[in-house]
Amino acid sequence: MSYEINLPDVVAEVAQAFSRYEHALVHNQIDELDRLFWHSPHTMRYGAGENLYGHAEIQAFRATRPGAGLARTVTRTQLTTYGRDFATTHLEFSRAGSDKVGRQTQTWLRLPEGWRVVSAHVSVMQ
Amino acid sequence: MSYEINLPDVVAEVAQAFSRYEHALVHNQIDELDRLFWHSPHTMRYGAGENLYGHAEIQAFRATRPGAGLARTVTRTQLTTYGRDFATTHLEFSRAGSDKVGRQTQTWLRLPEGWRVVSAHVSVMQ
Repeated sequence: MSYEINLPDVVAEVAQAFSRYEHALVHNQIDELDRLFWHSPHTMRYGAGENLYGHAEIQAFRATRPGAGLARTVTRTQLTTYGRDFATTHLEFSRAGSDKVGRQTQTWLRLPEGWRVVSAHVSVMQ
Repeated sequence: MSYEINLPDVVAEVAQAFSRYEHALVHNQIDELDRLFWHSPHTMRYGAGENLYGHAEIQAFRATRPGAGLARTVTRTQLTTYGRDFATTHLEFSRAGSDKVGRQTQTWLRLPEGWRVVSAHVSVMQ
């Protein structure tokens, strides 16, 4: 297989989903965050301080997470699409009062219900 | 689009590539590690202590990395394939003398040259 990388219309679609996710995250819009993650036991999220296997664990984490202190400044992003149905997003961020570099990666899949995150990893760089 | 998840023959292929990568990593087989990452400026790797954009940065990092202390114990893995050409792998690990939990995620794409990592993220859980 070979793939057309970064087809403009596909990039535009994923960029919109990526942006929706960021907005929902910093505003702690839990329903929207839950929606944007694939509703599957296969969905994964390694967070800064937790390892979550399956959408149910991810949803339970969101529901109990404190809603304060989620604001962040995005310092660098990269988005790549592979053909029409797969994408990855990469994001570096900082938080007020910390000099640490945060990183978020997400793998996206086009599903009948729209673009969804099937795997995510968030961490603080050492 | 919908996808057949975890088709057995596809899982077997990705598991083999995943295992090859793990073996190459702990033995610091730099040529093999370079080979298993997509040769593209789009390839990404957030490491525990570095953010690398493009295969050239990843290759330069590997070349200068100390070869000692790479051994690790894999404590949990999850591999998911989406259709025939796309996959994600997730791995938790520990290192001797540390009680910290390490995490590795990789997004894989089937390319003409074989299965290749197009995006990776390694971190230590806080």
